[in-house]
Amino acid sequence: MGSPNSINVASHTSSSNISPLDPEEFRRQGHMIIDFLADYYLDIEKYPVLSQVEPGYLQKRLPKSTPHNPEPIETILQDVQEHIVPGLTHWQSPNFFAYFQCTSSIAGFLGDMLSTGFNVVGFNWIASPAATELETIVMDWLGEILDLPKTFLFSGNGGGVIQGTTCEAVLCTLVAARDQILSQIGRENLVKLVVYASDQTHSAFQKAAQIAGIHPMNFKAIKTSKSTSYALSPNSLRAQICKDVEAGLVPVFLCATVGTTPTAAIDPLESLCAVAKDYGMWVHVDAAYAGSACICPEFRHFIDGVEGANSFSLNAHKWFLTSLDCCCLWVKDPSALIKSLSTNPEYLRNKASDSKQVVDYKDWQITLSRRFRSLKLWFVLRNYGVANLRSFMRNHVKMANLFEGFVAMDKRFEIVVPINFAMVCFRILPSALSETIYKNGKLDIVSEEHANEANRKLLDSINMSGCVFMTHAVVEGVYVIRFAVGATLVEERHVITAWKVVQEHANVILSTYKPRALLV
Amino acid sequence: MGSPNSINVASHTSSSNISPLDPEEFRRQGHMIIDFLADYYLDIEKYPVLSQVEPGYLQKRLPKSTPHNPEPIETILQDVQEHIVPGLTHWQSPNFFAYFQCTSSIAGFLGDMLSTGFNVVGFNWIASPAATELETIVMDWLGEILDLPKTFLFSGNGGGVIQGTTCEAVLCTLVAARDQILSQIGRENLVKLVVYASDQTHSAFQKAAQIAGIHPMNFKAIKTSKSTSYALSPNSLRAQICKDVEAGLVPVFLCATVGTTPTAAIDPLESLCAVAKDYGMWVHVDAAYAGSACICPEFRHFIDGVEGANSFSLNAHKWFLTSLDCCCLWVKDPSALIKSLSTNPEYLRNKASDSKQVVDYKDWQITLSRRFRSLKLWFVLRNYGVANLRSFMRNHVKMANLFEGFVAMDKRFEIVVPINFAMVCFRILPSALSETIYKNGKLDIVSEEHANEANRKLLDSINMSGCVFMTHAVVEGVYVIRFAVGATLVEERHVITAWKVVQEHANVILSTYKPRALLV
Repeated sequence: MGSPNSINVASHTSSSNISPLDPEEFRRQGHMIIDFLADYYLDIEKYPVLSQVEPGYLQKRLPKSTPHNPEPIETILQDVQEHIVPGLTHWQSPNFFAYFQCTSSIAGFLGDMLSTGFNVVGFNWIASPAATELETIVMDWLGEILDLPKTFLFSGNGGGVIQGTTCEAVLCTLVAARDQILSQIGRENLVKLVVYASDQTHSAFQKAAQIAGIHPMNFKAIKTSKSTSYALSPNSLRAQICKDVEAGLVPVFLCATVGTTPTAAIDPLESLCAVAKDYGMWVHVDAAYAGSACICPEFRHFIDGVEGANSFSLNAHKWFLTSLDCCCLWVKDPSALIKSLSTNPEYLRNKASDSKQVVDYKDWQITLSRRFRSLKLWFVLRNYGVANLRSFMRNHVKMANLFEGFVAMDKRFEIVVPINFAMVCFRILPSALSETIYKNGKLDIVSEEHANEANRKLLDSINMSGCVFMTHAVVEGVYVIRFAVGATLVEERHVITAWKVVQEHANVILSTYKPRALLV
Repeated sequence: MGSPNSINVASHTSSSNISPLDPEEFRRQGHMIIDFLADYYLDIEKYPVLSQVEPGYLQKRLPKSTPHNPEPIETILQDVQEHIVPGLTHWQSPNFFAYFQCTSSIAGFLGDMLSTGFNVVGFNWIASPAATELETIVMDWLGEILDLPKTFLFSGNGGGVIQGTTCEAVLCTLVAARDQILSQIGRENLVKLVVYASDQTHSAFQKAAQIAGIHPMNFKAIKTSKSTSYALSPNSLRAQICKDVEAGLVPVFLCATVGTTPTAAIDPLESLCAVAKDYGMWVHVDAAYAGSACICPEFRHFIDGVEGANSFSLNAHKWFLTSLDCCCLWVKDPSALIKSLSTNPEYLRNKASDSKQVVDYKDWQITLSRRFRSLKLWFVLRNYGVANLRSFMRNHVKMANLFEGFVAMDKRFEIVVPINFAMVCFRILPSALSETIYKNGKLDIVSEEHANEANRKLLDSINMSGCVFMTHAVVEGVYVIRFAVGATLVEERHVITAWKVVQEHANVILSTYKPRALLV
């Protein structure tokens, strides 16, 4: 019988030149990065919030190939400061009012550090029981403070899972809905399946439909209008479904949104779910941005009716301090996900899974491997507590109201849609242009197109300044500037400054504006 | 004109109770976690490598709901030590020989900390130019040290992208291939598309096919055998394709593997690509595990023929020290990905994207939002350098050879397939059981099933000890124990101990083994 001692192992011995997990080096270098990041947060307002680099800037600064020999962390960190930081658009800057924020926090960061440090791969229960069990617990915790119907929680035979992003959550639920129907009507009818959303719905849904093989013609983005504040009308939905059913198509999925990306519009869940129910459709509620705010009792009514939906998701990395990526998805019927997404290769078989006593999250998502993301959400929930999390979001809403007040007092501007949550949609009014155009040129009719052009110029000019960063949307042809309050570090003074910047740039734009048609 | 100064803002002022990014608190708490993790690595061998908890253990230990008021990090960290650590299966333990490893390193950890700290969302170039540009640069760096054909690099009009996992990489490329064909033959023919792989291919591919809407009957897992060391035979592939084409089906995609999960088998790329070419199929090469080793010239030949493929991926988080998740995908024709995965909502429009001068990675992957993952890969490449990365993997291969030698010297065992890279597939031989069975019972023919049963018991017994963790595979009905060397902290002494553990447990199993059929 062979024994290790009887083998001459000397010939096999070879010392590696690196100790990539030496605890004392880990400590030394880890502290260095912590200090680097602490200083970054101290200095963050000094950087232009929107990066000012030109395309291709980095290639000019970095070597052409991987070094053969090691370089010290100190050198690399210096390069981060000199070459990477200038190329960052600073999402954590308090002057970042663009898109929807992606909030960091110390607690979220610490939880994420532990997750990276443990580096366990919790695809099934046995691969790290804590990773699975903490996730089930935390998803029930969060579901409860959102006052989600019990049927969405593990304690009510539903359940939650942390995905990377809404794109994945929508894709998973769409695939589950698709396969449920196809198992009844036959897979050859995939080409007949139709999915619905409003024209304000996030592009994540369109992408999910593309990936899931839904015919592009069967992706129905139903028109919304200012009359419903860009919410999806149940009547329009029903009319479209009727038309499609008559044409021999099969409705399968509705993606309703609470807090759309262009204007934070809110689709009326209760009546939409009622329509969907008549046709046996799956309803997913995408509350990526606004869902977090629903832990505040005064906002909870925006998701009233969710009990009629099949699934609900929000991005805790948006407004809930957990850092990218952390999309929380709840489903009423986890078995629908599992039927579509499960694979059971022999090399992953184990007693715990065979016993059916455990959750194997690999079957609730697109990927097999998964990070231990629940740690950061758990840290955030505990380290801040419900009371502070509520006041964190309420503060942002107050600041958005403050900004709204500034806009409302300046007659050159208008608030385009009533403010929901912490985002203000505003623009320069066409009427503010008429005087300028009269002065500068010969046109005497100021069209919406002129206003759009002026607002586009205003936004460009503001963003180029590096002082603040906002983005835009276009609704019913109207170009709108979005002012989203939500950065972790934002304070009232930043909102006040932002409005000053808007005014200063508007002064220049308005005094020099020449409509494009008049330029030679 | 309204001015902020003219508004009484006092009524809006409301102080939050938390400062979730206070730099000095960040510093203090960050250092605490670094020390916690350094101590974890120091102590890691003290923990049972496979978690010993029972299903539901954590719910009994944690409160039922989210706290209303904040709890200090110190308390939470104590709970991590007391309640989370026992529920971890320690993937970073040097005694972890299961699945394929997921390697951590200090450099990878530091890069990931910066990524979480900056917390930028690099969906398009403008949202953080450095995140996009560093990724393009680093993917060319890594492609070059792998000696990938220039056509896969940005410098050769291909390009690389960092995805989360292979599941995503395979899904993206499959969807691109699917849509290319459907644009020619019409979307109603989706039901006719066929995809191919060997029966050793990772379940990620089956899952991708399910998600992409490929008819389950058209997922063809072609049988392999010991005669080809479980590699996919080009003849078998061609025979299957011919049959399918005759039946009116349309071949669209082949997933070839270099380093399969069950036995690290290597599909012959050159001849497989030649077959695929005859039918205009997309070939994806999944080198999730073994791809990293191909930076060593002596292993590079295993991906010879990759020039005939359309896409190639490896998981840098497996054997390349970058921590989960970091799957590197290269494609020859990025426009194929973009055609399938692009959406262009107005709210993401910007001048840089409109100029077509920049890469917008959102169109190369499933999700919109994406972490700044290239930082950790850049840190690893620079901080270790090519020379050390090669010696890191070579050491693992040597240790696997050492273990192979131990097995070979013990006549009770066999090496089931020739060793590739750093994984040993072994088992107790049926012949080792015959004496035991003769002693203990009445059966005189020892079947493969008895051997399987004994090996399963051996593996259970080893894993329950907590000393080491290995997993299994079944190939052609034979239960095989997989011994994968690859943990960052593994040293020769751990491999020697692991073999001692195998022998000790085998001694017990063999001396007490009663085939199940003989138990009353």
